Amino acid sequence: MAVIYNRVALIGLGLIAGSMAHAMRAAGLAGEIVGYARSAETRAIARDLFCDRVTETAAEAVVGADLVVLAVPVGVMGEIAAEIAPHLAPGATVTDVGSVKGAVVEAVGPHLPAGVHFIPGHPMAGTEYSGPRSGFATLFQNRWWLLTPPEDTDPAALARLRELVESLGARVDTMDVAHHDLVVAVVSHVPHAIAYTMVGVADHMRRVSQSEIIKYSAAGFRDFTRIAASDPVMWRDVFLSNREAVLDILGRFAEELFVLQRAIRMGDGEHLHAYFSRTRAIRRGIIEAGQDTSAPDFGRSVDQAAGASGNVR
Amino acid sequence: MAVIYNRVALIGLGLIAGSMAHAMRAAGLAGEIVGYARSAETRAIARDLFCDRVTETAAEAVVGADLVVLAVPVGVMGEIAAEIAPHLAPGATVTDVGSVKGAVVEAVGPHLPAGVHFIPGHPMAGTEYSGPRSGFATLFQNRWWLLTPPEDTDPAALARLRELVESLGARVDTMDVAHHDLVVAVVSHVPHAIAYTMVGVADHMRRVSQSEIIKYSAAGFRDFTRIAASDPVMWRDVFLSNREAVLDILGRFAEELFVLQRAIRMGDGEHLHAYFSRTRAIRRGIIEAGQDTSAPDFGRSVDQAAGASGNVR
Repeated sequence: MAVIYNRVALIGLGLIAGSMAHAMRAAGLAGEIVGYARSAETRAIARDLFCDRVTETAAEAVVGADLVVLAVPVGVMGEIAAEIAPHLAPGATVTDVGSVKGAVVEAVGPHLPAGVHFIPGHPMAGTEYSGPRSGFATLFQNRWWLLTPPEDTDPAALARLRELVESLGARVDTMDVAHHDLVVAVVSHVPHAIAYTMVGVADHMRRVSQSEIIKYSAAGFRDFTRIAASDPVMWRDVFLSNREAVLDILGRFAEELFVLQRAIRMGDGEHLHAYFSRTRAIRRGIIEAGQDTSAPDFGRSVDQAAGASGNVR
Repeated sequence: MAVIYNRVALIGLGLIAGSMAHAMRAAGLAGEIVGYARSAETRAIARDLFCDRVTETAAEAVVGADLVVLAVPVGVMGEIAAEIAPHLAPGATVTDVGSVKGAVVEAVGPHLPAGVHFIPGHPMAGTEYSGPRSGFATLFQNRWWLLTPPEDTDPAALARLRELVESLGARVDTMDVAHHDLVVAVVSHVPHAIAYTMVGVADHMRRVSQSEIIKYSAAGFRDFTRIAASDPVMWRDVFLSNREAVLDILGRFAEELFVLQRAIRMGDGEHLHAYFSRTRAIRRGIIEAGQDTSAPDFGRSVDQAAGASGNVR
């Protein structure tokens, strides 16, 4: 494949940035990959594994870059944007990989100078691992990468970023910022909040020992612990920065849970059966949409061949 | 391996019974496998796939059997026990595979004649599929199979059943009935209730379309839909028959969720970070206990080699 950006600056060198770099290198998509992370150790690992060059400040990293990727926790995007803004090349594209878009647009947008294209993005891919060693080239294969371009985005800049993202193996959709934040609250943020909570309940039990919980855990609880093992800093920022949508969906969830709880308490078997039958239909829809498999092993072998699936942020 | 039971009667011919039959056949553990299910179609499929013989009543199926396995929904175990009781062979062992033990002991125990050994059991294995075509020989590989023998259980009968279960590939633990029901409420029943509820919330959303939910679902939500796709009749019965423990844990869960919700509302990042960090430790424990893997693809390829993991009831 041809080079799409001559110099890509990765700000933050964790799972997503590392995976992007591995994939860009594998396909020859970037002329040069420059990296910055706060920790010197992370920078050293990234230089060994996937960066052509690392710098000691974010400002240095973006000099001359035609693509800048903000891959830091949502909570620090604003200060990074302020720091790099004076050093951005005219005509450069700035994107981010945060799992919340409204808060990022608010924090980053005001700092960026005219003539720089800001196209927020959200790769819906991940694993429960983090750090500069956790990335791999196939992370984005067949995963969605949502872009939330402002209405006045330059079409050529958008097309170029889309080409990069598709060349990383992802599928691209565009939507507006508020809708994005609601959708991810439903399919990702609240499921994570719930998984964290269930693991917390188990952690507090006195009559059931930790060792029993660990020993007998299997799906479902095992799936919950996997979800709940994701990066705490990232998730703190996700919940704080997508607060409104998350609280909306959490409220609905609590309501719905109380209805189920009441049916159990009242012994309302008809209600339970009808409810549990309805949820099967959604599952079938997901299998038909090719987001999962109906194989008895849940397609675990296929998933691997197609790259990782996993925790979506 | 040698024959452990001369004639095994399987009452109910779904995922668990079918998997037991496939595994018993593969290892030559049973002289004859006799099956009964209410539906003639199910019986015909079972005879083709894994039974030596099927019968038109449960009573006929148990005649001369030295092991009888009740593999029907928990809600009908009592009536089945009443029907087969007069036909049980003296010295026969009766076990069940229900995921709740207190309700089964209450429903089944009173019907069984003296001289029959009743040893309730719970194979902690499953997939989201059900029916006579869903079973496979490796379902129980490395999975726990909990037995809750009454205190006066004949040691020889218990040892024999344990030998069978271990020969199916499972690991055996024994515990008392009440403790069993609490443990499974934590590691399985409440996680399922929560997954059903989250899928229900998504189902009711108006501002987010079904197609968007299906399209962008990936883990976590995808994991929830898989859990929530399990057999509705079985799960109705599980919740109705393990009501007390489930309501206890659901209450704790709601409490815990409200604390998390409040922290999000108040913007208490310190609380969120501390909470999310703590849940990582449980995850590490599970990996160390060998119940899951730390591979970036979550060991999906390995899981397949070791047989299915999946929904535990």
